[in-house]
Amino acid sequence: MKGAVLHAPYDVRFEERPDPKIEQPTDAIIRMSATCVCGSDLWPYRGAQPIDGPTTMGHEYCGVVEEVGSAVKGIRRGQFVIGAFAFSDNTCPNCRAGYQSGCMHGGFFSMAQAPMLRVPLADGTLMATSDVPRGAMIPSLLTVSDVLGTGWFAADAANVQPGKTVVVVGDGAVGLLAVLSAKQMGAERIIAMSRHEARQELARRFGATDIVEERGDEGVARIREMTRGVGADCVLECVGTQQSMSQALGSTRVGGYMSYVGVPHGVSFDGRQMFFTHVHLHGGPAPVRRFMPKLIDLVVNARIDPGKVFDLTLPLDKVAEGYRAMDERRAIKALLQP
Amino acid sequence: MKGAVLHAPYDVRFEERPDPKIEQPTDAIIRMSATCVCGSDLWPYRGAQPIDGPTTMGHEYCGVVEEVGSAVKGIRRGQFVIGAFAFSDNTCPNCRAGYQSGCMHGGFFSMAQAPMLRVPLADGTLMATSDVPRGAMIPSLLTVSDVLGTGWFAADAANVQPGKTVVVVGDGAVGLLAVLSAKQMGAERIIAMSRHEARQELARRFGATDIVEERGDEGVARIREMTRGVGADCVLECVGTQQSMSQALGSTRVGGYMSYVGVPHGVSFDGRQMFFTHVHLHGGPAPVRRFMPKLIDLVVNARIDPGKVFDLTLPLDKVAEGYRAMDERRAIKALLQP
Repeated sequence: MKGAVLHAPYDVRFEERPDPKIEQPTDAIIRMSATCVCGSDLWPYRGAQPIDGPTTMGHEYCGVVEEVGSAVKGIRRGQFVIGAFAFSDNTCPNCRAGYQSGCMHGGFFSMAQAPMLRVPLADGTLMATSDVPRGAMIPSLLTVSDVLGTGWFAADAANVQPGKTVVVVGDGAVGLLAVLSAKQMGAERIIAMSRHEARQELARRFGATDIVEERGDEGVARIREMTRGVGADCVLECVGTQQSMSQALGSTRVGGYMSYVGVPHGVSFDGRQMFFTHVHLHGGPAPVRRFMPKLIDLVVNARIDPGKVFDLTLPLDKVAEGYRAMDERRAIKALLQP
Repeated sequence: MKGAVLHAPYDVRFEERPDPKIEQPTDAIIRMSATCVCGSDLWPYRGAQPIDGPTTMGHEYCGVVEEVGSAVKGIRRGQFVIGAFAFSDNTCPNCRAGYQSGCMHGGFFSMAQAPMLRVPLADGTLMATSDVPRGAMIPSLLTVSDVLGTGWFAADAANVQPGKTVVVVGDGAVGLLAVLSAKQMGAERIIAMSRHEARQELARRFGATDIVEERGDEGVARIREMTRGVGADCVLECVGTQQSMSQALGSTRVGGYMSYVGVPHGVSFDGRQMFFTHVHLHGGPAPVRRFMPKLIDLVVNARIDPGKVFDLTLPLDKVAEGYRAMDERRAIKALLQP
């Protein structure tokens, strides 16, 4: 089969790779219905995260089960499945505590931009829908794998609840779906920080009540002004840079909650600032598996339409164009069809 | 009157200071029953926190109300009162959210090592006991002002609950009372990190089930070993150095809770470590006022005996010896009697 391989910064190729096969009795092989490019793929694509030789790419996936290993009990051939971007046994102490992305026997995918995928620990990683969904629902189901699951975790980790004032820092697909998630959790006011018109529009559609275009200290000042000097109850950091983290921390009220779901690159937190602002901090790679039953249910019952974040659809062999379009911010998120 | 003044590192003097008087209608003046030296007083005492000329010291206090300003409603002359180390109006948005130590109109005391004290915002800062307590109860009531309130916040902020495994980093008076607090909150296992015999004994008396003497990476390895590789549910950092923070973070399980109540000195947190360990972080100057009703009740009903942390009692005019004894770790905590 052919799949995406990153050779060097800005050099993604669609090239021959070995077909996946069952290696462990707990594995499953799935035939991809759709995959996509993630904001986090742009870090190595831009050279901001070094790679060690040619690297297969992709960690968001859904599709039909082709084959299962002898120890797989909960998933069978022919089912439509979605899986988390981190694989997990879903039975170890970390998984049982709800942190499947920190599974003691798990790991992260990096080969899903391909027509076939081997899924380790299939029982603990995948969930099947009751029926094979119609094609129009596939983009929204695909978002459960990472981008929706991560936006949802951002809202959950920042303690979003009915009546709260929420700020979302970052207008990538995760930030936009963090807006959707905050809306689902009953937030009263949702302030999206964005200076990009198409993204502002989608943020409003997903439930944003206010848009703030200012950034950095000016952005913080604007949030303070909008909250009568108090700051926001819940701030969701969906980027991962020092500037966005500082902006998020500065926007949070005393005793408020800040979550971070963008992989930090060169970020450090000052102990005294954390101390004297009394902010609750929580984040990390989203434990998507924890939220999958809820999120699949919301999508299948058409309560939410997160697939709207895909504003570019390409055949899988045009994967390099997907990276380019996202890097240049011409696309919010690129869906790839095998 | 005479009170404590820090002139330079290791130079505390008991010298003439102006008598406090009502300055605002919301003030009260109290006559001190007892005050004490705090672990945090040792930072400027040791020169680790620069001072800007002679500085009055002390922020832990309880005593009898001598006079109140015209706007004070809830406190009256003759009552025995305890107050938090931070003064607060207890009505602003931050106070209503339970963060009185981040009050929008509040501040911190620094003149309580004296026979008299002016308390700003008396209604929002002080609580009166129903009767004037007998002398033997005063040390325990005094701890509510800071050291017990801070230990309690450490346990609360780290989500201590029945059945949890708790690690306390730091065997100062705050750490020891964090042990007591965790016990009160129903923790199943309480591991105190200490290599000092008298403190270990008090930790056990307060509820510690295990003592770990190792520090740094060795301390982390020992905690991991004791928790079957998982780490502790709740880790309470009661020191404030980079080493103790790193030790605490490394001891916390994936998705666990770490609190910090020691004022950070030269501490920074690495974004990636915070991210990939999924730890919940919360701390700051303890909002003691939030916990005062509960803590006073526990003391008055003799359910707890936190005054045991005072292993040295001195007349107020010997305050310099209190600092010396604590600096040299000859005393856990020094009580001062005017």
